[in-house]
Amino acid sequence: MIHIFLIVCSLFTFSAHAAVQDFCVADLKGPDTPAGYTCKPAVKVTVDDFVSTGLRFAGNTSNIIKAAVTPAFSAQLPGVNGLGISIARLDLAAGGVVPMHTHPGGSELLLVTQGFITAGFVSSANSVYVKTLKKGDIMVFPQGLLHFQVNAGGVTAVAFASFSSATPGLQILDFALFANDLPSKLVEATTFLDDATVKKLKAVLGGTG
Amino acid sequence: MIHIFLIVCSLFTFSAHAAVQDFCVADLKGPDTPAGYTCKPAVKVTVDDFVSTGLRFAGNTSNIIKAAVTPAFSAQLPGVNGLGISIARLDLAAGGVVPMHTHPGGSELLLVTQGFITAGFVSSANSVYVKTLKKGDIMVFPQGLLHFQVNAGGVTAVAFASFSSATPGLQILDFALFANDLPSKLVEATTFLDDATVKKLKAVLGGTG
Amino acid sequence: MIHIFLIVCSLFTFSAHAAVQDFCVADLKGPDTPAGYTCKPAVKVTVDDFVSTGLRFAGNTSNIIKAAVTPAFSAQLPGVNGLGISIARLDLAAGGVVPMHTHPGGSELLLVTQGFITAGFVSSANSVYVKTLKKGDIMVFPQGLLHFQVNAGGVTAVAFASFSSATPGLQILDFALFANDLPSKLVEATTFLDDATVKKLKAVLGGTG
Amino acid sequence: MIHIFLIVCSLFTFSAHAAVQDFCVADLKGPDTPAGYTCKPAVKVTVDDFVSTGLRFAGNTSNIIKAAVTPAFSAQLPGVNGLGISIARLDLAAGGVVPMHTHPGGSELLLVTQGFITAGFVSSANSVYVKTLKKGDIMVFPQGLLHFQVNAGGVTAVAFASFSSATPGLQILDFALFANDLPSKLVEATTFLDDATVKKLKAVLGGTG
Amino acid sequence: MIHIFLIVCSLFTFSAHAAVQDFCVADLKGPDTPAGYTCKPAVKVTVDDFVSTGLRFAGNTSNIIKAAVTPAFSAQLPGVNGLGISIARLDLAAGGVVPMHTHPGGSELLLVTQGFITAGFVSSANSVYVKTLKKGDIMVFPQGLLHFQVNAGGVTAVAFASFSSATPGLQILDFALFANDLPSKLVEATTFLDDATVKKLKAVLGGTG
Amino acid sequence: MIHIFLIVCSLFTFSAHAAVQDFCVADLKGPDTPAGYTCKPAVKVTVDDFVSTGLRFAGNTSNIIKAAVTPAFSAQLPGVNGLGISIARLDLAAGGVVPMHTHPGGSELLLVTQGFITAGFVSSANSVYVKTLKKGDIMVFPQGLLHFQVNAGGVTAVAFASFSSATPGLQILDFALFANDLPSKLVEATTFLDDATVKKLKAVLGGTG
Repeated sequence: MIHIFLIVCSLFTFSAHAAVQDFCVADLKGPDTPAGYTCKPAVKVTVDDFVSTGLRFAGNTSNIIKAAVTPAFSAQLPGVNGLGISIARLDLAAGGVVPMHTHPGGSELLLVTQGFITAGFVSSANSVYVKTLKKGDIMVFPQGLLHFQVNAGGVTAVAFASFSSATPGLQILDFALFANDLPSKLVEATTFLDDATVKKLKAVLGGTG
Repeated sequence: MIHIFLIVCSLFTFSAHAAVQDFCVADLKGPDTPAGYTCKPAVKVTVDDFVSTGLRFAGNTSNIIKAAVTPAFSAQLPGVNGLGISIARLDLAAGGVVPMHTHPGGSELLLVTQGFITAGFVSSANSVYVKTLKKGDIMVFPQGLLHFQVNAGGVTAVAFASFSSATPGLQILDFALFANDLPSKLVEATTFLDDATVKKLKAVLGGTG
Repeated sequence: MIHIFLIVCSLFTFSAHAAVQDFCVADLKGPDTPAGYTCKPAVKVTVDDFVSTGLRFAGNTSNIIKAAVTPAFSAQLPGVNGLGISIARLDLAAGGVVPMHTHPGGSELLLVTQGFITAGFVSSANSVYVKTLKKGDIMVFPQGLLHFQVNAGGVTAVAFASFSSATPGLQILDFALFANDLPSKLVEATTFLDDATVKKLKAVLGGTG
Repeated sequence: MIHIFLIVCSLFTFSAHAAVQDFCVADLKGPDTPAGYTCKPAVKVTVDDFVSTGLRFAGNTSNIIKAAVTPAFSAQLPGVNGLGISIARLDLAAGGVVPMHTHPGGSELLLVTQGFITAGFVSSANSVYVKTLKKGDIMVFPQGLLHFQVNAGGVTAVAFASFSSATPGLQILDFALFANDLPSKLVEATTFLDDATVKKLKAVLGGTG
Repeated sequence: MIHIFLIVCSLFTFSAHAAVQDFCVADLKGPDTPAGYTCKPAVKVTVDDFVSTGLRFAGNTSNIIKAAVTPAFSAQLPGVNGLGISIARLDLAAGGVVPMHTHPGGSELLLVTQGFITAGFVSSANSVYVKTLKKGDIMVFPQGLLHFQVNAGGVTAVAFASFSSATPGLQILDFALFANDLPSKLVEATTFLDDATVKKLKAVLGGTG
Repeated sequence: MIHIFLIVCSLFTFSAHAAVQDFCVADLKGPDTPAGYTCKPAVKVTVDDFVSTGLRFAGNTSNIIKAAVTPAFSAQLPGVNGLGISIARLDLAAGGVVPMHTHPGGSELLLVTQGFITAGFVSSANSVYVKTLKKGDIMVFPQGLLHFQVNAGGVTAVAFASFSSATPGLQILDFALFANDLPSKLVEATTFLDDATVKKLKAVLGGTG
């Protein structure tokens, strides 16, 4: 009977090939494409391509924003490549802040697992949606909209942010405006901030121009 | 100067309308479409459409599988409608099991927040990917593949499963085979299970035929 | 022979129905969905649903930013609904500015048809891409990234921005931060701007809180 | 034990709602959307929404092209709505022709089940791909490209065309040019056909103008 | 006049390059990506990339399930790569069965061309949809749901299954559970099958563990 | 303080990698995929990948159709790769014509910037939508449908066509029928044109067979 069933198996071996598209574990050394990285050969894929232990521990929040973000995107968790999902851990010490930012490539769903976080976003219609979340609460931030998270208690808060993309991107407002070589004159003209403010923040964040 | 700026604002008020597509909060009383529910009018949208507190507390695991799943899909969290993301809380008492199942409509990313869980999936190529996860570990399950989660410690485990769809669906193998009116004869012919096994499980799970 | 061909025609009349999905002219009074508005019945569709004359004339730039944006999105040009494309006219008087903004729902391709415009965007990797464009030049701004346009000549400039979405949305940074009820304290905490700057801009732009 | 399992079932009943997105059977009386028709309520869905017997019998080929096309698109088989697939039966009597046409909304995969068919398409690069197919042969026609099928034997041929869309559309070249009110002058200017040819074909196909 | 038209042709030669995206014939030796294989250079593409004669003949049904499946996916018919469509031939001798299975990557549309087949699927809501089909009948199975086909007559049946993906994948339930190294203990815990049943089927299907 | 902020920056440097998916500038020497070209390494990307000056000047309309089309698709403007947008310049001398054609891969939005153009398209339902446009007017042509543009004034007209794809393709009807080796017999059988007409146009356009 085994013999006969093995025949059955061979009849269906085409599935072994087709199955490659069940997933496409990122070959991080290969080229990227608009749909994600090229796929690692199926024979080299192991369970560890689908698992990450990198979010077990708190990131280092000994910095001025008292916050740390630890991502598990395609680059850290190659198994999510092409699957339209990824995650990041967020640690916020007391007083910690994730500054105003956007994810150009995906929506975010925040889950608070410790402490209290005030989170919010602004819509294209300029409506403001803000809420203070506690352990077990979730909040969704639609793709591309400005949003933020602020520690709302006197204790460390932890949260996990899932994304609807394996590479959602991250554009932090202050970095985009003040931490690169975008000329101060253009920053001022397009934000209505005065020269002193722009130059001060550029100095602090290492921007030039 | 306020006056002048208000003119500016009015110039851009077209954004108020276009902005509706920033998000499309589900009108759960309206019709569903292949892309999700129709949208609640923008004026009726509040922050609570984007927030859920329903996952704060453990589900009731006093049942034979010692497990509970609490979802936050479009039906429970209308703000995720159309955004390609959702989440569910998983409680597994000691000995608890989430039986073999698939999500036909999305990939899953599991985050363990308490205890130990052995999780795994099988690919189309019939490879098995199993790993025991602890607090802070994550594992991704590609769309449509059979997978499971089992409590791997002597204590209650908690996990949160994010999905790449606002309505990922859930097809539990045993329910699909034994908890409906699919004739036993067809179940047997298509699973190679014997009549006694099928009838026993149908009896237990309330299936007929 | 006419008779016979009419038989042929009737054989293919199924196409009349299927054809509805050639396009889906927005029924602006119907509900919106994550994929766009519901469709106007085919019999009510006319060529004017696909044509707009609203971009013939310059918008009024007699305002503080000396700029005007005239859109032809789904709301103004219902024929683009569901087709993944739309357009807007941009008028920039001498000294005019389109302030730092994003389109959460689509990429933009700018075509300058008169004058000189300095345009730029910042990537997630914090690289700056800036260029001064003249008549006939084009520049593309990837979805969701902060970008701006500034008149770079002493004369009025005109440009047309095409989008990869019928409803790309528009989030103007200053409006999102200062023209709504987002509390000053949260603005300050998440932008590192000082209280005086935030309050001044809130006063000018009509924000509260 | 039944009792206990029923508890299990109720734990998972959320799936009953989410499951709606397994499929979205077209409510043909409801509005259409860019993603397909709105969904029939789940309770009204039956197996017959997923089954069609309308392709059992040959269409009537007693017409000048000696061909008949019988579709099973969303309108005829509501279960395919939103699933990205549909099918049509093609009957070609001896000498029969499916004239040059395109499907604007989907790619086609032709399967010959009887007789001989010469089929072909032309690419944007103006390359011609033509092949004579026999019973059991398949050929794929990429979306939107001009293609045709001609009976290549002295006997009736039958084929089934699958599409990568539930509403692929159908634009038959001769009908588009000669069977409507597109002015002859415009037809001539845009096709380089002479006035006599255009007028003759317009007369035959019932076109005006 | 030929000369002049050739000038016209050269004006439009840009189309030759752009046309590559009319289709993307799989370069099966190149890397795979989440969107399909990389493309064979246009100059190497021939009509045979779009045609397959591999489904002309019945597969070998001399096996215990008395069934054979012959696919034409990207690997067998490289022209379907990226086009969202593929097909497979199904031969079912008298008593033949295609066991319970899913296609994680696409919906299926079954066309019976000979004999009688009882087919069915189960939804996430645990509803059962079963029908006996005869020659010319079609049935659609939504993506990712468990389904099966059983010969319902005393004679050989033939069917063709079209898919809404060039690589729909195939997960056969019994193979996933019993024909690999998934530990018996995990199979039992997640399916409620008893140890004897699991071990028997593992033995028959060649599974270990 | 700079020191501290630099720590912040390093915390977020993961964004530098993820940011690659903000855009995917085409590596035109690399392989193509169904989703577009592979990406140029981020470090080699410059602003000129997003800018084109190639549409500044009129194309040469000294040809029989008195028209010129200058594209900025992926091949000419690599920054649009994967972004779902592109553009082309259209010059129409007095009497100029863009013959009947389709774009299999995208919808088109035409903007007239000089002169007068009569444009139109035909739907699958065989309805005709024609309009004469002047400077500033726009018209949308849904994906895959036959359409045309004709100079409607005594003066040169200029227009810019945006597309909902970086590689929309272009299939010009007359070229597809008469400028390749598609056998005259097949052209005649599938278009109902007579042999003399087909042979004449084949001769003019350089077709064979």
